[in-house]
Amino acid sequence: MTLKFGLLGCGRIGQVHARSIKALDGATVVAVADALPEAANALAEATGAEVRGVDAILAASDIDAVVIGTPTDSHFDQILGAAKAGKAIFCEKPVDMSVDNIRACVDVVEKAGVTFLTGFNRRFDPNFASLRARIRDGAIGAVELVTITSRDPAPPPVSYIARSGGLFRDMMIHDFDMARFLMGEEFVRLHAVGAALVDPAIGEAGDVDTAAVILTTASGRICQISNSRRAAYGYDQRIEVHGALGMLRAENQLETTVELATDAGFRRDPAQHFFLQRYEAAYLAEMRAFVEAVTSGTQADPGLMDGLQAQILADAATHSRETGLPVDLPAA
Amino acid sequence: MTLKFGLLGCGRIGQVHARSIKALDGATVVAVADALPEAANALAEATGAEVRGVDAILAASDIDAVVIGTPTDSHFDQILGAAKAGKAIFCEKPVDMSVDNIRACVDVVEKAGVTFLTGFNRRFDPNFASLRARIRDGAIGAVELVTITSRDPAPPPVSYIARSGGLFRDMMIHDFDMARFLMGEEFVRLHAVGAALVDPAIGEAGDVDTAAVILTTASGRICQISNSRRAAYGYDQRIEVHGALGMLRAENQLETTVELATDAGFRRDPAQHFFLQRYEAAYLAEMRAFVEAVTSGTQADPGLMDGLQAQILADAATHSRETGLPVDLPAA
Amino acid sequence: MTLKFGLLGCGRIGQVHARSIKALDGATVVAVADALPEAANALAEATGAEVRGVDAILAASDIDAVVIGTPTDSHFDQILGAAKAGKAIFCEKPVDMSVDNIRACVDVVEKAGVTFLTGFNRRFDPNFASLRARIRDGAIGAVELVTITSRDPAPPPVSYIARSGGLFRDMMIHDFDMARFLMGEEFVRLHAVGAALVDPAIGEAGDVDTAAVILTTASGRICQISNSRRAAYGYDQRIEVHGALGMLRAENQLETTVELATDAGFRRDPAQHFFLQRYEAAYLAEMRAFVEAVTSGTQADPGLMDGLQAQILADAATHSRETGLPVDLPAA
Amino acid sequence: MTLKFGLLGCGRIGQVHARSIKALDGATVVAVADALPEAANALAEATGAEVRGVDAILAASDIDAVVIGTPTDSHFDQILGAAKAGKAIFCEKPVDMSVDNIRACVDVVEKAGVTFLTGFNRRFDPNFASLRARIRDGAIGAVELVTITSRDPAPPPVSYIARSGGLFRDMMIHDFDMARFLMGEEFVRLHAVGAALVDPAIGEAGDVDTAAVILTTASGRICQISNSRRAAYGYDQRIEVHGALGMLRAENQLETTVELATDAGFRRDPAQHFFLQRYEAAYLAEMRAFVEAVTSGTQADPGLMDGLQAQILADAATHSRETGLPVDLPAA
Repeated sequence: MTLKFGLLGCGRIGQVHARSIKALDGATVVAVADALPEAANALAEATGAEVRGVDAILAASDIDAVVIGTPTDSHFDQILGAAKAGKAIFCEKPVDMSVDNIRACVDVVEKAGVTFLTGFNRRFDPNFASLRARIRDGAIGAVELVTITSRDPAPPPVSYIARSGGLFRDMMIHDFDMARFLMGEEFVRLHAVGAALVDPAIGEAGDVDTAAVILTTASGRICQISNSRRAAYGYDQRIEVHGALGMLRAENQLETTVELATDAGFRRDPAQHFFLQRYEAAYLAEMRAFVEAVTSGTQADPGLMDGLQAQILADAATHSRETGLPVDLPAA
Repeated sequence: MTLKFGLLGCGRIGQVHARSIKALDGATVVAVADALPEAANALAEATGAEVRGVDAILAASDIDAVVIGTPTDSHFDQILGAAKAGKAIFCEKPVDMSVDNIRACVDVVEKAGVTFLTGFNRRFDPNFASLRARIRDGAIGAVELVTITSRDPAPPPVSYIARSGGLFRDMMIHDFDMARFLMGEEFVRLHAVGAALVDPAIGEAGDVDTAAVILTTASGRICQISNSRRAAYGYDQRIEVHGALGMLRAENQLETTVELATDAGFRRDPAQHFFLQRYEAAYLAEMRAFVEAVTSGTQADPGLMDGLQAQILADAATHSRETGLPVDLPAA
Repeated sequence: MTLKFGLLGCGRIGQVHARSIKALDGATVVAVADALPEAANALAEATGAEVRGVDAILAASDIDAVVIGTPTDSHFDQILGAAKAGKAIFCEKPVDMSVDNIRACVDVVEKAGVTFLTGFNRRFDPNFASLRARIRDGAIGAVELVTITSRDPAPPPVSYIARSGGLFRDMMIHDFDMARFLMGEEFVRLHAVGAALVDPAIGEAGDVDTAAVILTTASGRICQISNSRRAAYGYDQRIEVHGALGMLRAENQLETTVELATDAGFRRDPAQHFFLQRYEAAYLAEMRAFVEAVTSGTQADPGLMDGLQAQILADAATHSRETGLPVDLPAA
Repeated sequence: MTLKFGLLGCGRIGQVHARSIKALDGATVVAVADALPEAANALAEATGAEVRGVDAILAASDIDAVVIGTPTDSHFDQILGAAKAGKAIFCEKPVDMSVDNIRACVDVVEKAGVTFLTGFNRRFDPNFASLRARIRDGAIGAVELVTITSRDPAPPPVSYIARSGGLFRDMMIHDFDMARFLMGEEFVRLHAVGAALVDPAIGEAGDVDTAAVILTTASGRICQISNSRRAAYGYDQRIEVHGALGMLRAENQLETTVELATDAGFRRDPAQHFFLQRYEAAYLAEMRAFVEAVTSGTQADPGLMDGLQAQILADAATHSRETGLPVDLPAA
């Protein structure tokens, strides 16, 4: 059986997912849609798919699953439409900027009984996935302290930041999901700090570019997250988990394994700079997991509830940073 | 000229300092004192010094400087006595459990004009000192985010913990000093969390064994500190500083440089377990710095104000952890 | 323009190259051939190509280039046939077990003027390619000493070894090519030693499983190569080049970036075990280079002369090991 | 009981050993001798010892052991004199430039029954000693291939090289001893190559500055050694041992554990440059081992036979390099 896909959104991330589908056995792109005709045409040509409208894709009988890679404010309608049409849904993060909207989606998706995967691609990174598997296998005993470091090579344009929902919703949301993924216990309280240290214009736009958050669980376990919009040495993505029996950490992926030794010392390459390169294997594994979930009729992981929980944490961190006070987290 | 020392306290740390003095040119131990006669006798024999009482040492005309390595509750009287006697003072941390007492010492020591060094030995670790020197040399531009990880191999006895003043005053105080040392700007606000995850008996004794703190400066810079009383892989002492131009980090010192590769992978040694081994070079450098400061008539660094500031942070963290709320820090 | 390929040989390596061609823009597999019909059929289905006979492929007007991935003793005839038919040739290593045969191919291929690439895939490994580019850029000044370590996870069956031409021709030939690639000056003398330390049956089959070679150039530069047929920790592929200004080295690619710290120390993953995984990126880059060379009408690198030189070195090492004496190398 | 030392030779290495003796319990320097009165006086003052002549030290009833740190051509007479006087002997490497002379010493020392330690300090380096202990403990099974890399930061003056006996006797002799130490089986054949690549003046003085040697044992085990008189990145001292179950390697000791990450990548410090710094711990452990051997009346390790064997290998390598041919090694 071949899973037949309709792609909503043919931008950078849509192209990534199209490439993954093409590389997988048992999956094919049937149709693509985009508000920009030239984007849709280009991806159609590259994949051998047809260009259709979003509604046509949702209504099509020859399409089993949709990938939602459109702008965030289109997600809500497309999720509801796809769920009602009984199509499996692969939705990019964030699911929606409004927690209420996501809750509404949860109802509809659950009723429809369709497979839903929220695109937290980092869970599928081979390094992070391996680290988490070893936690589950007991390699370090009970988890006590999770430390997540996430730094972008350079900030996006301030115009993007201004409409991004802010660092906690736009960037740290990945780390909130990772924190939940690793901790295995929900967080009950959170305290966030942040400032615009990289670029004052980011501060003027109402956002921060450097931030740190402490989260705690009911049993007292702790997670530290720090973010920066700038890292001269590449895309800095590290995880460290400390437990009763030891520590697991995942280091950066450097551009090569080459080391140069001179009178200045021993120098290795910068970290891979570009997120599509850094997470290339993750994007492919993510799509494979989705295809397998749909094909086997099981729920996908991370699902819609994970998208909801991460958004709740991002909202709380935004609020905590603004008020300077910790926030007690609501149950999902 | 040879600097003539009187040692107050002949326990483990007193012995360390005696060894450092012996190894340095231009310094000698003239007399030692301890409440336990056998401890005093043993160190006297090892150093070739006399055993005297504390008061005799403070009054002695053949002694230029004292090392205060007695229990913390003796520090206050000994500092005042030594300052009034015009002796240079090397005092172990914490200076005193009471911020008010330390403030009182500041007055007396300043009036006396004697050299005072607070024994934050980690500043003198060659790795950390080098890291900080590179910050000052501009290697990473303006500091934005400091991350300090400090984990002991195993918790001390609960009986010790019960009278230790708690993790923030007993253990994290080193990290508070390191944070100030690295950041170069005073902190204005702090939020601490913690729990007894290693041993419930520590919780029953009113303390935590796992903790994390976020500190911020007036300009928005951030410091994260995390502590655990247990680390299976040795004495975990790491620093990471992120700045405008890059990152500096100091890794653990492992027992050897040997790596074993088998079908289980590539394995290096645990971190050096014992703090006296890990900080052996630091203790010697610390004493050398003190001798140089006294000999040249300059102030020592870290001084008494650094001892005060660290204690203020430790008190604030203790309070924050208990109340669950951030604390605005008073000026020193 | 699309380069149209005929694949001779549909075994493991033929499948790798088929996958690479499929992944590249501007290249397509038109036909495949294999002595085993089921192998040919399977690869035809996977690529959408036709099954044809070798002669039909060589004679076909709709085929521009052939990939020769058949058993080594078929290479000679297929190279001559393809060259005479004016087809570009991508030939797996070793080109032929007989240096005389390779010399005969050189004549024919040069006369035909077709592009020829010898499949020394390791030159295209991103790490090794980067290391070599830095040598050329002067990062370490003049090269003085090259050290190549190459160890397989486990020996092949003795039945394979018995007809393999021996370790120097079957395994170390890659390292001979790498040595030439890195050194940039031909070798003039060689001394080889070896023994069957891994498995006595390999010795009984007339071969060695552990070997070391020293090569020197006319100007006195030195290369050390060591091989083992067994490495418990994975596929061990390292290079180190020492020059006037410093050293470059390429380390192994480990399975993940994860490190586990326990009371046993700090443990990273084994090296990637399987050569197809380890050199996945290299195989793709190699095919890309071939397509670009053919398309632009330039010579490919490594070419047929590189295949010849490596075979000369492998023969000399085999002889040196047998006689226990160094061998002066003939000019190519 | 305190072991009473006479020091013959008060140069750089004599001072190192004096410092070690001073730092050890149960050992003291009674007298020192040097052809230069000011050198003897300085070390006498630093240690609290007397200045005496060599003969007076050898004849002294208040001296138990001598450290021979004089120029190599004085060793022979001093060894014979000390042995006949019944004194334990700590002799710097090389024992003597003449294998026959060393053989003569063996006879005399064995007859005298005195403890003799040959100063191959690297065996006592904590890293190398630990690596070897793990081999003995079976961590990697049977040893198959030993690789030793040894590079000095910069060549000594050509005037020194001219009277040094050549690179194999002056520098690689340490590595020959290390090879024997690690392999645990004597070598039977050796092939050496070398050239003056660092400085042509070294070649004009009849020596090489870059060299590689392959050694084999009767059972076919292999050792590769490479040396260079220049390494821009510090004192490069590495060992790698490959065995049936895996690999052990000892990496360089860097100046600090600090890493700097910038847009140029991740940079660690150079290797420790100065051999006295790099082997500080080894020198102390070496003297401790000697004191313990003398005190307990056991033989020291490495003994005089180890000095002999290393010299035989160095002679053979010198000869092999000159003739271009392998050398079969005589039994000791």
